[in-house]
Amino acid sequence: QSEDTQVHYIAVIAGDGIGKEVTPVAQQVLEYAIQGVAKFEFTPFDLGAERYLRDGAILPDDELEALKSYDAILLGAIGDPRIQAGILERGLLLKLRFAFDQYVNLRPSKLYKGVTSPLSKPGDIDFVVVREGTEGLYCGAGGSVRKGTPAEVATEVSINTAYGVERVVRYAFDLAMKRRKHITLVHKKNVLVNAGDMWQRIVARVGEEYPEVTHDYCHIDAATIYMVTEPSRFDVILTDNLFGDILTDEAGAVVGGVGYSASGCINASGEFPSMFEPIHGSAPDIAGRGIANPTAAVLSAAMMLRHLGYDEIAQRIEAAVEADIEQLGSTPRSTEQVGRDIIARLA
Amino acid sequence: QSEDTQVHYIAVIAGDGIGKEVTPVAQQVLEYAIQGVAKFEFTPFDLGAERYLRDGAILPDDELEALKSYDAILLGAIGDPRIQAGILERGLLLKLRFAFDQYVNLRPSKLYKGVTSPLSKPGDIDFVVVREGTEGLYCGAGGSVRKGTPAEVATEVSINTAYGVERVVRYAFDLAMKRRKHITLVHKKNVLVNAGDMWQRIVARVGEEYPEVTHDYCHIDAATIYMVTEPSRFDVILTDNLFGDILTDEAGAVVGGVGYSASGCINASGEFPSMFEPIHGSAPDIAGRGIANPTAAVLSAAMMLRHLGYDEIAQRIEAAVEADIEQLGSTPRSTEQVGRDIIARLA
Ligand SMILES: CC(C)[C@H](C(=O)O)[C@@H](O)C(=O)O
Ligand SMILES: CC(C)[C@H](C(=O)O)[C@@H](O)C(=O)O
Repeated sequence: QSEDTQVHYIAVIAGDGIGKEVTPVAQQVLEYAIQGVAKFEFTPFDLGAERYLRDGAILPDDELEALKSYDAILLGAIGDPRIQAGILERGLLLKLRFAFDQYVNLRPSKLYKGVTSPLSKPGDIDFVVVREGTEGLYCGAGGSVRKGTPAEVATEVSINTAYGVERVVRYAFDLAMKRRKHITLVHKKNVLVNAGDMWQRIVARVGEEYPEVTHDYCHIDAATIYMVTEPSRFDVILTDNLFGDILTDEAGAVVGGVGYSASGCINASGEFPSMFEPIHGSAPDIAGRGIANPTAAVLSAAMMLRHLGYDEIAQRIEAAVEADIEQLGSTPRSTEQVGRDIIARLA
Repeated sequence: QSEDTQVHYIAVIAGDGIGKEVTPVAQQVLEYAIQGVAKFEFTPFDLGAERYLRDGAILPDDELEALKSYDAILLGAIGDPRIQAGILERGLLLKLRFAFDQYVNLRPSKLYKGVTSPLSKPGDIDFVVVREGTEGLYCGAGGSVRKGTPAEVATEVSINTAYGVERVVRYAFDLAMKRRKHITLVHKKNVLVNAGDMWQRIVARVGEEYPEVTHDYCHIDAATIYMVTEPSRFDVILTDNLFGDILTDEAGAVVGGVGYSASGCINASGEFPSMFEPIHGSAPDIAGRGIANPTAAVLSAAMMLRHLGYDEIAQRIEAAVEADIEQLGSTPRSTEQVGRDIIARLA
């Protein structure tokens, strides 16, 4: 290994439950795939449920600051049934997405050969959801008055800015140019008229700069129908934070389970580190048994490689995963075995 | 027909597109089914796209006032591609739901024998979504500043009150008592903490009064997964306005198309008229050809009968529809033929 081998510094937040099992596999695959070209230096961050239960810390300022200097973050899963819903999600996961301005939440869905979709006629499913990641109902705006009384009022506020929408719209159009050149904007503009109208105007305006890309519009309710009846119609789905959250879980189900669904929380301006995480959660029901499927974590790692400029290596990993699923996807294997099988294919 | 036959005054808003085709069928079935017991007097209201295009009126105050005196409203579908999204939906449909305080949006989903679900293993699907109908993101709160400039900000505000939530929660528990005694609260409490927490507290508190009813909780994103992987798990789904909108469309797809999905917008306090409408829209693509499936409209009419106290007649209609679907569901028939076939079964 020469003196000038490039080193990429990766912060690893394996997190909770199966996050701790699938992330090491993703790291092994990354290390194997990059050898001879560059090097990864992984730094584990002890964040998640156990840390919180131990010392009450969720994401201390100095650790957030330290994370800022990494080239990327590899995240496993966050969440533990012992902790009230929202605490870790908002204090850690969403805090990172917002603090590092990860405005593109990229979530591809593909029905791999060898995976059984719950749909009887799934067709050829291969689309990407470009979910806005730093606005909408996820801002944490809103509050409660007279909590616990019969006169309680609770509000949630969706904040949407032209600044925030335009940049993710541009990202989606650039992505569409590399794909089948079609964008479906998903919103609920007939009810959420202020935000919906703004999204649509910006898509129309930016779209003029991309004459090759066609775009149409679909209400979120109708989109959940198409996701079941004709998911092959989608190429790039562009949507807001909450609708993207909902639609990508449904998409995960349709392509045979969120176990195959990678995601990237991308700060596309490059100012802050991006974060790569499987869509699935910490799965406490199967955690600790070494049987979690690491495929989504490995695919998220491949997405990280692409983000760092290693398109070809990312593609090799994706091809290995695809072949692995096709040939062994239905064979019960341990988490580590899947990792070894993928690495064997890379050899 | 004796002098003292009870007369029910029903306002009919057939509306747009296929709404104009399926609503008359629902009326015929109602008239046939009630004969000898009571009488319906239908009053058509000329509201919808054509009226709006003709004289700009959406729902004039005097017509809203007039509607108030009816025993119920039968609605077809609202929406027309010539009119900007949101105008009729908000000015007519949502205005009625809000003005008449229709706080229970009741949406049953059932997979009928003879209908092909897009799922390969749908199981035994039979659940009801109790969707809150007068709060949440549907309030029309929110606004825009600096519209059309790069500094534009658009907000949408979800307003949720203990008053509004408790009454629909009670409705759901009462309904669960008549069914399989299980409620799934669907929300996104890990992100929408103010509203989600209030919903959950109220469900827990009201639930104590119904010890026989079990209840659990599911995030909206996870719910869209279960809707595809295991919809038979649901009995009563209780949720807010927007999540209910999304989930019932997905549910419609899963039970073979929104063509079978009835709905009621119910003012359960009885102060204002309730409204019964199929979930499907005006379907401009097939409108005018007499081929729209009137099943959802007929089932909505049955729901109206139940609301007016005619449980047994409602059940007879539902049984006739069920038999009709089982035996002729896959046969292409005109809208009117389906009506005649259902009526023949009632004979
Ligand atoms: C855990 C939760 C806050 C998160 C979200 O809602 O974004 C998750 O559902 C996801 O999709 O990454
Ligand atoms: C037309 C629209 C405003 C309406 C809604 O969002 O409630 C519709 O989708 C429905 O579900 O009845």
